[in-house]
Amino acid sequence: MTTEVKKRNVLYAQSGGVTAVINASACGVIETARKHKEAFGKIFAGENGILGVLNERLIDTSFEPTDVIAGLRHTPAGAFGSCRFKMGSPIEKPALYQRLLEVFKAHNIGYFFYNGGGDSQDTTNQLAKYCEQNNFPLTCIGIPKTIDNDLPITDSCPGFGSVAKYVATSIMETSLDVASMAKTSTKVFILEVMGRHAGWIAASGALAARKAGDPPHIILFPERPFLKSEFTRRVKECVDLYGFCSIVVSEGIRNEKGNFVSEQGIKDAFGHAQLGGVAPYMAEIIRSETGFKYHWAVADYLQRSARHIASRTDVEHAYEVGAAAVSYAKSGKNAVMPIIVRTQDYPYRWTIGETDLSKVANVEKTLPTDYISHDGFGVTEDCIQYLRPLISGEDYPPYVDGVPNYVSLKKQFAPRKLTDDFAID
Amino acid sequence: MTTEVKKRNVLYAQSGGVTAVINASACGVIETARKHKEAFGKIFAGENGILGVLNERLIDTSFEPTDVIAGLRHTPAGAFGSCRFKMGSPIEKPALYQRLLEVFKAHNIGYFFYNGGGDSQDTTNQLAKYCEQNNFPLTCIGIPKTIDNDLPITDSCPGFGSVAKYVATSIMETSLDVASMAKTSTKVFILEVMGRHAGWIAASGALAARKAGDPPHIILFPERPFLKSEFTRRVKECVDLYGFCSIVVSEGIRNEKGNFVSEQGIKDAFGHAQLGGVAPYMAEIIRSETGFKYHWAVADYLQRSARHIASRTDVEHAYEVGAAAVSYAKSGKNAVMPIIVRTQDYPYRWTIGETDLSKVANVEKTLPTDYISHDGFGVTEDCIQYLRPLISGEDYPPYVDGVPNYVSLKKQFAPRKLTDDFAID
Repeated sequence: MTTEVKKRNVLYAQSGGVTAVINASACGVIETARKHKEAFGKIFAGENGILGVLNERLIDTSFEPTDVIAGLRHTPAGAFGSCRFKMGSPIEKPALYQRLLEVFKAHNIGYFFYNGGGDSQDTTNQLAKYCEQNNFPLTCIGIPKTIDNDLPITDSCPGFGSVAKYVATSIMETSLDVASMAKTSTKVFILEVMGRHAGWIAASGALAARKAGDPPHIILFPERPFLKSEFTRRVKECVDLYGFCSIVVSEGIRNEKGNFVSEQGIKDAFGHAQLGGVAPYMAEIIRSETGFKYHWAVADYLQRSARHIASRTDVEHAYEVGAAAVSYAKSGKNAVMPIIVRTQDYPYRWTIGETDLSKVANVEKTLPTDYISHDGFGVTEDCIQYLRPLISGEDYPPYVDGVPNYVSLKKQFAPRKLTDDFAID
Repeated sequence: MTTEVKKRNVLYAQSGGVTAVINASACGVIETARKHKEAFGKIFAGENGILGVLNERLIDTSFEPTDVIAGLRHTPAGAFGSCRFKMGSPIEKPALYQRLLEVFKAHNIGYFFYNGGGDSQDTTNQLAKYCEQNNFPLTCIGIPKTIDNDLPITDSCPGFGSVAKYVATSIMETSLDVASMAKTSTKVFILEVMGRHAGWIAASGALAARKAGDPPHIILFPERPFLKSEFTRRVKECVDLYGFCSIVVSEGIRNEKGNFVSEQGIKDAFGHAQLGGVAPYMAEIIRSETGFKYHWAVADYLQRSARHIASRTDVEHAYEVGAAAVSYAKSGKNAVMPIIVRTQDYPYRWTIGETDLSKVANVEKTLPTDYISHDGFGVTEDCIQYLRPLISGEDYPPYVDGVPNYVSLKKQFAPRKLTDDFAID
């Protein structure tokens, strides 16, 4: 028996809410690792993220042909499945971390790539420390992902630019619609967008405006308390000035007491609070306080899955952070995360940098005060200058029979090595 | 003074709810009329549709440069403004029709093109008769437009194909999202779409599926009564079978008594019925009857203004009915409307035909019974075969700075000729 060290395998997992471009990061990971067969063994992916690792459900990506892996670049959502699952710390949940180690050992995993937001990067960091303490040589690399754009250090987050492009385009198009109808019909239009704690997505609506007075006329941010009287005054003013009023509202706006507006007021037929849906609540304010005809839309998953209108810049960011993660692993780095570094605004230039995972965990980047206009209903030029490059460029998926030709995976599982079924919780 | 007959002018107007491609019809009208300067004088457009005609607010399109008129082809909504205004009949509203005649005479209008749905074509037809009775030589041509696809005789309606493509793409993308999340989080997704009386738009969601079992799993049509118990049974079945359930629901679904589901149940904090928003109502059923986690989106104006994902076939239809309308006028036809005639399904072939306006008025084409599947939750192969070609092809607008470069008009008005202000109502 030789003592030659077997090449160690790669494990990739997606985590948390998915985006239009998280699979582009997966594509960057797999394509880059496949190019370095001298360094990496098999490339596995957890089914439904970390849950699939805990359950030893490892998708063996070697069964996926080259063109399917390439197609991940233009396919939205989480092709391997994602999950919302709190790993906690090794102190809080020792059994979970112990189980991860068992699975890693059983499948000779030497490289773990975790594609997620702040919480996931906290997990990646804790896992790196845990493995070190337990003398298990695992390279842990984070890959940033979140539509919320709320990770620190990185200039922007892969996933955000595409949502921003969707929101800007959508409020531009719907505002043209309202403008056409305003003489006799709809005068107020409300678009509800995501961003529970940070107003980045709502702010991106401002990219629809080419000159002063262009819609959207009002943007409501979670960073500012919602004041009903100020709001209705401004709506009336806009209808006077422009003939109509176009509004982007974040799902996360709160009243002066700090409570979510979406959780107040609306009750269903059974008297239950109607959660989600700040737009219908705003619409009711428009109806009762102004009498204007209104329409409202709730974008919800439409915005974060809209790969058909992804930002090319965002797709490139997503792919490159995936590719860089593999390069970092190859060069022996550990407990780091690739980040987007902006080197110039116009024309936009960027490069990939790196940060320690410890700096990313548990920090939430909200909209800076100087990005919100004085009246609280719009954004500043600094904000536009920051946002504009992130929605730049188009990157259309191929179409077949009139709809996008998104890829789907075979999902062939690696044979199980551990006999015991692991019970989570 | 010579007796030479002065070339007579053209008047175009947009009517009713706008679409992603109604301006492509405007483009077809104006570009074609501009090519025939021997036949047509000035080309005017009513500001906000027929209201601008009544108010003598006529936009003189000769001030709009060639590239801006060409840009109407890729610009959504009503560039000249539209309106919801019931003209009624000359017997009901003689003053309105008399006023139209005065404006036509004052501006030497010889050709009237009315771009709208069923009601508007009824008006066009009545106007044609009225002018004949009053010995005013006016050529009246209808141009079909409606996202609802409910006009008779024409194989499809310009405006519908693009909404269909939007809905199919959107439910495909959001279903990928839900599928990624279903293990630990959202298991049911509900997309509310338009179509108050006809299920064509909801049916188009079925174009997202490539094989049996693909989402959407449930489509709810206004043509079938909504039965809560059947619905929840089917939702549970889908979650069992597929791990998640993806639903397209028409805003126009009704209960067994024939009342709109959107008008029942949901009340706001003040006890007012919450109009619109069948999706949150369905979500509440999911919550109370199944306990599954859910997300919902209301597409509203997003779907009918989404020029960024317009169907190329639809854009071509819209342009050609506009162009044909002008050709008909030139060749002396009157009280007719160009229609889309399908000559072959695969590969799709079509041509422009014509119909008398009298045949279009007041007929509403709903989804045929044999287009809805036996269980009422999907469509048949015949339906797919009809719908598929209508979403075929992409026709992207140009982009500047990350957002579509839609054109806007100068809107220079023709000098008024009538001194008295006309009071509507």
